[in-house]
Amino acid sequence: MLYKLTSFLLYIMQKSVIIVAGGSGRRMQSDIPKQFIEISGKPIIILTIEKFYAYDNDINIILVLPSKHIPHWNTLAVKYNLMIPFLIAKGGDTRFQSVKNGLALVEKGIVAIHDAVRPMVAVKTIQRCFETALQLGNAIPVIPVNDSLRVVENESNKPFDRNFVRIVQTPQCFNVNLIKNAYLQDDDIRFTDDATVFEKYGEKINLVEGNPENIKITHPVDIAFAEALLKL
Amino acid sequence: MLYKLTSFLLYIMQKSVIIVAGGSGRRMQSDIPKQFIEISGKPIIILTIEKFYAYDNDINIILVLPSKHIPHWNTLAVKYNLMIPFLIAKGGDTRFQSVKNGLALVEKGIVAIHDAVRPMVAVKTIQRCFETALQLGNAIPVIPVNDSLRVVENESNKPFDRNFVRIVQTPQCFNVNLIKNAYLQDDDIRFTDDATVFEKYGEKINLVEGNPENIKITHPVDIAFAEALLKL
Repeated sequence: MLYKLTSFLLYIMQKSVIIVAGGSGRRMQSDIPKQFIEISGKPIIILTIEKFYAYDNDINIILVLPSKHIPHWNTLAVKYNLMIPFLIAKGGDTRFQSVKNGLALVEKGIVAIHDAVRPMVAVKTIQRCFETALQLGNAIPVIPVNDSLRVVENESNKPFDRNFVRIVQTPQCFNVNLIKNAYLQDDDIRFTDDATVFEKYGEKINLVEGNPENIKITHPVDIAFAEALLKL
Repeated sequence: MLYKLTSFLLYIMQKSVIIVAGGSGRRMQSDIPKQFIEISGKPIIILTIEKFYAYDNDINIILVLPSKHIPHWNTLAVKYNLMIPFLIAKGGDTRFQSVKNGLALVEKGIVAIHDAVRPMVAVKTIQRCFETALQLGNAIPVIPVNDSLRVVENESNKPFDRNFVRIVQTPQCFNVNLIKNAYLQDDDIRFTDDATVFEKYGEKINLVEGNPENIKITHPVDIAFAEALLKL
């Protein structure tokens, strides 16, 4: 019954996603910004857009792009005959400012904030984030750590129990009013993602299960991984 | 000059590797123990053996296998016409006991202890570990973390600065006398790898650079990743 009510509320709730594509191609040893690199014949950012559209084809899609990348994006939208509607917000000098510019185009409901370079996000992960954010005001996807960890400090290092650690992914989902208020704060070097902005504003963060394939495409080896996955 | 001396000492030093293959196939949803699964036409454990042989074809290779897996291993050695010499030690009930059984076959010099399911280790990583272990008594390979992290405790969770965290890989390399003494301790639930055994015995652990591809093959998605890498 509660589940049905959530589903219904989520159905009528306005849903948006801000897809943040701020990165340059430096770490990829490529001139193409990494969100525009093709994987199995499609630019990463289009694969990402398609995932959110598959989750809900009424979702508002907001792309945050540095001005200088907008012409390239437009040619890709033509070349790949993109039929999914989108809005473009201008990228800022920092990720914080970019997200803020995206939020200016969102009015109400629940908003997901997602890295453009995470095309392997599962639709189930998106769904879990939106459902929990609807119930509790926010939700971020996390996965456990498979390897041993160590903490380094100055010249020394010591083991750190991985059972207490989670790897944070996106989409990070929030009640629109709450996240907009959180983004009225000044930027802070300790803001590494939207959850850290949100919790400094005083909110508790809710963790939901992510999916292990949902990696941030950063290095050339990640492209190989994503291509292998798409062929599975 | 110092470098040349290290190279010379490393050349005359006895080098061994204990390849620990204790795992069953449960998390792989496979009946085959994961170290025997084929990647691009070769069992993982053979790919791993070949990496250490490529580093130094005089290295002593010790495989630690559960008794019940020895017949399967022997058929693979025949099927793939393995021409690299090896010794077999019997797996124990715990990883601690397995490593101890492997160490019983090593006499002196430097020993690497490596997970059988890490076939993507770079020869450069193996080299860095042996060189530093020769100079300082031990070395383990680590890589930085790319994603945001959170620490969970009871019902709450908080951000954790990834800049202080390293992901630990293998091979973990040690002076043979020192690691043998460390393994005279009783087993302890806090021993998650050989470095934790070694440091409880009172030694400082030295970190060297690993390689990001050197993942522990755990889930089916990891196989796809490894196959993609081998094709690069």
